[in-house]
Amino acid sequence: MLLVNIGILGLGTVGGGVVNVLNKNQKQIIRRSGNNINVTHAAVRDITQTRICPTKNIKLTQDPFQIVNNDDISVVLELMGGVGLAKNLIEQAIKNGKHVVTANKALIATYGNELLALAKDYNTHLLFEAAVAGGIPILKSLKDGLSANQIELVAGIINGTSNFILTEMHNKDRNFQDALKEAKALGYAEANPTFDVEGIDTAHKLAILASMAFGCELQFNQITTEGISNISSEDITYATKLGYTIKHIGIAKKLNDKLQMHVRPTLVPTTHLLSNVNGVMNGILIKGNAVGETLYYGAGAGDEATASSVIADLIDIIRNTANHDIFGWKSLINITKCNTNSIASIFYLRLLVTNKSGIVKDIKKTLANYDINIEAILQKKINQKNDLHIALITNLTNNSKINKAVTDIQKYDYIIDEIKIIFVETLN
Amino acid sequence: MLLVNIGILGLGTVGGGVVNVLNKNQKQIIRRSGNNINVTHAAVRDITQTRICPTKNIKLTQDPFQIVNNDDISVVLELMGGVGLAKNLIEQAIKNGKHVVTANKALIATYGNELLALAKDYNTHLLFEAAVAGGIPILKSLKDGLSANQIELVAGIINGTSNFILTEMHNKDRNFQDALKEAKALGYAEANPTFDVEGIDTAHKLAILASMAFGCELQFNQITTEGISNISSEDITYATKLGYTIKHIGIAKKLNDKLQMHVRPTLVPTTHLLSNVNGVMNGILIKGNAVGETLYYGAGAGDEATASSVIADLIDIIRNTANHDIFGWKSLINITKCNTNSIASIFYLRLLVTNKSGIVKDIKKTLANYDINIEAILQKKINQKNDLHIALITNLTNNSKINKAVTDIQKYDYIIDEIKIIFVETLN
Repeated sequence: MLLVNIGILGLGTVGGGVVNVLNKNQKQIIRRSGNNINVTHAAVRDITQTRICPTKNIKLTQDPFQIVNNDDISVVLELMGGVGLAKNLIEQAIKNGKHVVTANKALIATYGNELLALAKDYNTHLLFEAAVAGGIPILKSLKDGLSANQIELVAGIINGTSNFILTEMHNKDRNFQDALKEAKALGYAEANPTFDVEGIDTAHKLAILASMAFGCELQFNQITTEGISNISSEDITYATKLGYTIKHIGIAKKLNDKLQMHVRPTLVPTTHLLSNVNGVMNGILIKGNAVGETLYYGAGAGDEATASSVIADLIDIIRNTANHDIFGWKSLINITKCNTNSIASIFYLRLLVTNKSGIVKDIKKTLANYDINIEAILQKKINQKNDLHIALITNLTNNSKINKAVTDIQKYDYIIDEIKIIFVETLN
Repeated sequence: MLLVNIGILGLGTVGGGVVNVLNKNQKQIIRRSGNNINVTHAAVRDITQTRICPTKNIKLTQDPFQIVNNDDISVVLELMGGVGLAKNLIEQAIKNGKHVVTANKALIATYGNELLALAKDYNTHLLFEAAVAGGIPILKSLKDGLSANQIELVAGIINGTSNFILTEMHNKDRNFQDALKEAKALGYAEANPTFDVEGIDTAHKLAILASMAFGCELQFNQITTEGISNISSEDITYATKLGYTIKHIGIAKKLNDKLQMHVRPTLVPTTHLLSNVNGVMNGILIKGNAVGETLYYGAGAGDEATASSVIADLIDIIRNTANHDIFGWKSLINITKCNTNSIASIFYLRLLVTNKSGIVKDIKKTLANYDINIEAILQKKINQKNDLHIALITNLTNNSKINKAVTDIQKYDYIIDEIKIIFVETLN
């Protein structure tokens, strides 16, 4: 049995979780990997700080380069985050012939193509299961378990913060600001929640999922991103009445060899399993042309859940079952972004109008000018002035048509506010 | 690029599905595996029969030994089923140095220990992802994705037939016989449905899941199995009113280094994702001590869904990423079955009584004699004679206590019928 020396960059939540899980599951991990794992060094920002894990047997240093340049260390775990120093350190580690495991989605989504090329040149592994959906083994499932499939759709609830906020809004009739405050109080949201609620974090993860699913390079910049801060509690109520749940979803679809990727609030049928993924939990729907619909559910964050994936990658490396071909494809293909105007979708529209007769008739007629039908509609009086909310679900149409129709409807004098458009996914 | 020759034993639903998926996803599979896969031979019972797949380029034979003894074939796919001839063929294939992929759960659950030992001796792979939950990559998830965890619980809806029947009973207020008839009409149940509705098929799969999860030998004979034919539509109704869904679940738990495995109808909270796994779909909950709760959902049967897992194993072998250590543990441990009497559980009881005053008080008192409390109770008049159904949920107690209490209650003269006991799992 070998003794494999590990160096950790960053000993915060995830790094501390890794040390704790390695300690508590030591026997199992030795049985799984066939070798003994020893965390010898860890780089931290402040050596005097209190930690969530014991550090008695770990040499702490404030100089992370001491770790990536240490000849006795074979695997480096990059768990410090950020895209500057972390990138330099990973590059140095690879150049020194070390394998690297990282949980850093921003780094992989942004610089993954070059880092993976570098790892290939140096014949080392660069693995990042923990970068997407925390403890859910979703990258391994795409790479190995579903390898016989052409993937048609990836749809994920992969940001716990925004899912918690939407779940609170659904279950407790809260508005966005209240739910966000609660998320902050519980430690689920950062002081500046932009990355989470505006969908940037989801987009990072989606870029990685799409590469794994379709065998193309990482294309983070091709993702259209829309946050959830504009979702009102009324929209939540109307969506529910119409049989839908609003979720913040990252979707990647392959349509006629072009790729469609976006992150946005989306109405999904309440009966679909994905709409039952609640709170801070993550869920990812994968459709393959052989397997059909599959779904993966679990904790998307947290010290030990994330550590579960980091250590799974580590075991893969140590027992020599990791695939050097990181995306699971021997050769990557080029896929270009598809034209958003032609994207077929169903839409939810919500209008605020001054009540007078003939409004619904007008709306129907204007939509019909663009071959759009109304599949379901509801109206609600919202004040003493007799103003109405009208919420409706269209049939399958496309981006271009709905935008033109909405521009026309917006011109009627009884429309008080900007018409809200939200995408609907039946996930079929 | 190598050309890898494959021989298939059995060209029915699964075998035909494998050929079809290999054809339609040929490009993707070559990209994934780095090699060309060629199905050269297939053994069939009747060479003249019509098939679901093209056979133009496949040499068909009615003698399966021609395949396992053919020197040009490197991987054998055993997709014929049964535990007699299939076993002999797999043994012969292994002895001839061939890798084997099988979807045969009965064979693996029953003879897996010896077959795996044989494969180890001959340094060949024997893989069987498709044997459990069809297209869901659950064995790979246990072996690879969750390898950092001590698994605490495996709870699976892994038989589509029984899940379809229970879903019909729940959603359409049907009784068992009606729902079974529907399942037969739709081709979801065999003419003799015993294997499915009595839980034997689920037990086969559970035995495999438990070995993967806990790193012990296959112990099919240690599984306590109870079918769903005794579940009445009234029980379904009462369970729903009490906040539960009745599912046919295979559960394996490790308790103080002992193993508890059973297949049985079980009340699970309606809010739990597992209770939303409906129809013929499969869902498996895995709890690990690092990752927490994870769930995997997808089609548990069907030609192409099962083919998806068979081919994933094949790709693993061809690209050389399969783990020779099949359970993912370098050494297996002995775990003995735990004493069923001491198993802690919550229970659902349903009594049929002649209505008279003081009944609930009697029941409460008798349960209290064994430290059992009632957490929820409902009563329903079921006929003109004033007979009542009483359905209740207990607190956490154990098998031994509940059996004693029920024996005592059964003696009251107003109890008309045998008291029904169903296990409740909160899955926490």
